[in-house]
Amino acid sequence: MNMRDIIIAKRDKKSLTDEEIKFFVKGVTDGSIPDYQTSALLMAIVLNGMDDREMTTLTLEMAASGTQLELPFIDGIAVDKHSTGGVGDKITPILLPLIASFGVEVVKLSGRGLGFTGGTVDKFESIEGFNVEVDTKDFNKYVVLTGMVISGQTPDLAPADKILYSLRDVTGTVDSIPLIASSIMSKKIAGGAKGIVLDVTCGSGAFMKDYAMAKELAEAMIKIGNLAGRKTVAVITNMDQPLGRFCGNILEMQEVFDTVTGRGEEDVIEVVTELAYHLITIAGKDAGMSPEVLRNEIRARLSDGTCYVKYKELIESQGGKMTPAGYPVYVDKPFDCMHVNSPDSGYVQSIRADLIGQASVLLGAGRLKKTDSIDYGAGIGFFVKVGDKVERGDSLCALYHGEKCEISEERLFDAMELILDAYEVGPNPPEKTPSILGVIT
Amino acid sequence: MNMRDIIIAKRDKKSLTDEEIKFFVKGVTDGSIPDYQTSALLMAIVLNGMDDREMTTLTLEMAASGTQLELPFIDGIAVDKHSTGGVGDKITPILLPLIASFGVEVVKLSGRGLGFTGGTVDKFESIEGFNVEVDTKDFNKYVVLTGMVISGQTPDLAPADKILYSLRDVTGTVDSIPLIASSIMSKKIAGGAKGIVLDVTCGSGAFMKDYAMAKELAEAMIKIGNLAGRKTVAVITNMDQPLGRFCGNILEMQEVFDTVTGRGEEDVIEVVTELAYHLITIAGKDAGMSPEVLRNEIRARLSDGTCYVKYKELIESQGGKMTPAGYPVYVDKPFDCMHVNSPDSGYVQSIRADLIGQASVLLGAGRLKKTDSIDYGAGIGFFVKVGDKVERGDSLCALYHGEKCEISEERLFDAMELILDAYEVGPNPPEKTPSILGVIT
Repeated sequence: MNMRDIIIAKRDKKSLTDEEIKFFVKGVTDGSIPDYQTSALLMAIVLNGMDDREMTTLTLEMAASGTQLELPFIDGIAVDKHSTGGVGDKITPILLPLIASFGVEVVKLSGRGLGFTGGTVDKFESIEGFNVEVDTKDFNKYVVLTGMVISGQTPDLAPADKILYSLRDVTGTVDSIPLIASSIMSKKIAGGAKGIVLDVTCGSGAFMKDYAMAKELAEAMIKIGNLAGRKTVAVITNMDQPLGRFCGNILEMQEVFDTVTGRGEEDVIEVVTELAYHLITIAGKDAGMSPEVLRNEIRARLSDGTCYVKYKELIESQGGKMTPAGYPVYVDKPFDCMHVNSPDSGYVQSIRADLIGQASVLLGAGRLKKTDSIDYGAGIGFFVKVGDKVERGDSLCALYHGEKCEISEERLFDAMELILDAYEVGPNPPEKTPSILGVIT
Repeated sequence: MNMRDIIIAKRDKKSLTDEEIKFFVKGVTDGSIPDYQTSALLMAIVLNGMDDREMTTLTLEMAASGTQLELPFIDGIAVDKHSTGGVGDKITPILLPLIASFGVEVVKLSGRGLGFTGGTVDKFESIEGFNVEVDTKDFNKYVVLTGMVISGQTPDLAPADKILYSLRDVTGTVDSIPLIASSIMSKKIAGGAKGIVLDVTCGSGAFMKDYAMAKELAEAMIKIGNLAGRKTVAVITNMDQPLGRFCGNILEMQEVFDTVTGRGEEDVIEVVTELAYHLITIAGKDAGMSPEVLRNEIRARLSDGTCYVKYKELIESQGGKMTPAGYPVYVDKPFDCMHVNSPDSGYVQSIRADLIGQASVLLGAGRLKKTDSIDYGAGIGFFVKVGDKVERGDSLCALYHGEKCEISEERLFDAMELILDAYEVGPNPPEKTPSILGVIT
């Protein structure tokens, strides 16, 4: 078996055998296959596709290319959640304590933010003292303590995927359902999940621009999950605008606090509730409640303090500081330095989340390069969202930087330009689109 | 402009702009584009194609990536001939003196053989003393002396094509009409040709397996030639069996000698005549002869000594030894060491030239690696060819090695196996196919 023949097989629209896929992933992992052969195969996959069996084998082989976590201490079925990327996506810090209150135990491995998508780890680190560098062998301890652990110090999960991803990024081979689906699923499977709930974001600012594409990706991941013996559910969520009222690390954690204390935005609550519902159900912790009763119970726990109690446990167990009154202590304070005003009157039609994400990175909330430091206080607050009426001159949003940080006028100006591009204002009220576009099982 | 966007454009079936193709070829030549990006683009081209303008721009940019020969000393239009690869293809050493006898002056740049296709340079070097290392600046001298020069010391022609070709070879991106056509045409154009005659081989043993494929390649090259202002003609020739009676360096040069002295095989004569006809016509040296008269005149000159006189001039001008009686002196003597006999009775249906070529390389006539030395005396002689009747036990062909060289029994045995695979014998006489399958202008 050699790589050239494997490339030619895919070039000629053949289905690769399990042995061929195994050979490929092994060679990528150990470096024996040169990048130029890998990228040629990746392009052939982008253009000629992969069938369900090929995707599943690729996923499992990538998952097997590094550490595979076992989570024997989890009570019930180990579940995990993945989002295909959103802006203002503060779901995880709300979801974890929420499902923990139902007895769903979760080991959550999260990355840092790169590019316009913020990282969950960065968000937690905006709380003074919060330690995300939890060693794999201590996961057990935290789960026993609170039922939850969040870790940025991920073990060497699916190294083949990491290598492939960095190559795909520079060779125009990112846009491929089989490659995206197997990349996501390989990391979830290597992380030990036996049940997986996917938040597939969809809209102008998401990777999947329309519902058909999002559905195709969701279905591919569900097929892989089922063939690999993992119960998998996908929730397709609307990303025609950023989620909630804020983006930026501290700003989002403040919104998280508001949400777990009963003062959340409806779109955030809807998405959290739907994801929580499926995670609780898959984990077998629904205690026989009907879907309606369970959904109501989930919503209730955001308001009645149940979720807040678990949230506090999560923060404190990992070293995060809380004031005596029970508020988190943040590493900086967001300073509202500028407002962007609407150049037109009318109704907000859409807010391109990708441009908002880019503006937020420019303000200092994210990283352009891995080595960039971030301004935890930086970000954007939205005064108006899709459907809202604005007059010319009304504030669309506020730009923030941390009080401990500085920002150049040039960057502020560039961020403002992006925001003006992101907001589309038209004469008529837009059709209302729900936050949950569909659920695929 | 960046390479990732160029890859994405071709991935998305867009036509690349001239500027994008220029950027790509420049980056390949100066090494600023990494191989993994180049191979991703190559695969996208293989699968999504290129239009005529893209192919032409790619060709001209590759031609411009290195030295571009000017041949001001050529009387008339500088012509060149290219074959897409045959086994037993001894056309060039016959064609050069033949057309020179009509006043067509040619600078012929030739490579050494690699893989199963023999190299013209190796064939000339099988004559004692023949020097193929002619410096570019001396081309003029030889052309004035004899009207011909053959050189293996090619200047740095189309280096971008060399880089791309070696990458294509290992990334499964060889089979692409636009890439093959632009590769061939770039070298011809860089070599200074203003008129190009293409011998597009077609059949089981050739790169183009059927007439439709050969025609497609021929048409692509003609389109490039015409758009680049080069008069181009393609002759599609039959490669359902090796050409002539022998393959191997000295063996073929002996057959060349036989052909230029009026004792050639009909298939060789037919191909040589057709190619000579177009070269003479394009170069404007047909002296007003009608096609029929010119073709007859070409054939006559193979028999009446005219071609032989020019052949002797060519050999002697570049230092090749001839005996006083006018025979070339070879560097070795082929030794007929084994015959392969037919396991069946019937009619020869086809002889797969690629397998014969591989057998010939095993015998020592060619190189598997660039650094391999070759046995000039090695090769194969065919007792029977397509259409001939054989009885079980009749000799199909003779295997040769040079008297100065040795060969292992194992290699002989492997060569024999290949030859038995190459010969297809069936009960009925096969349909007769002509040597010239078509001419495309």
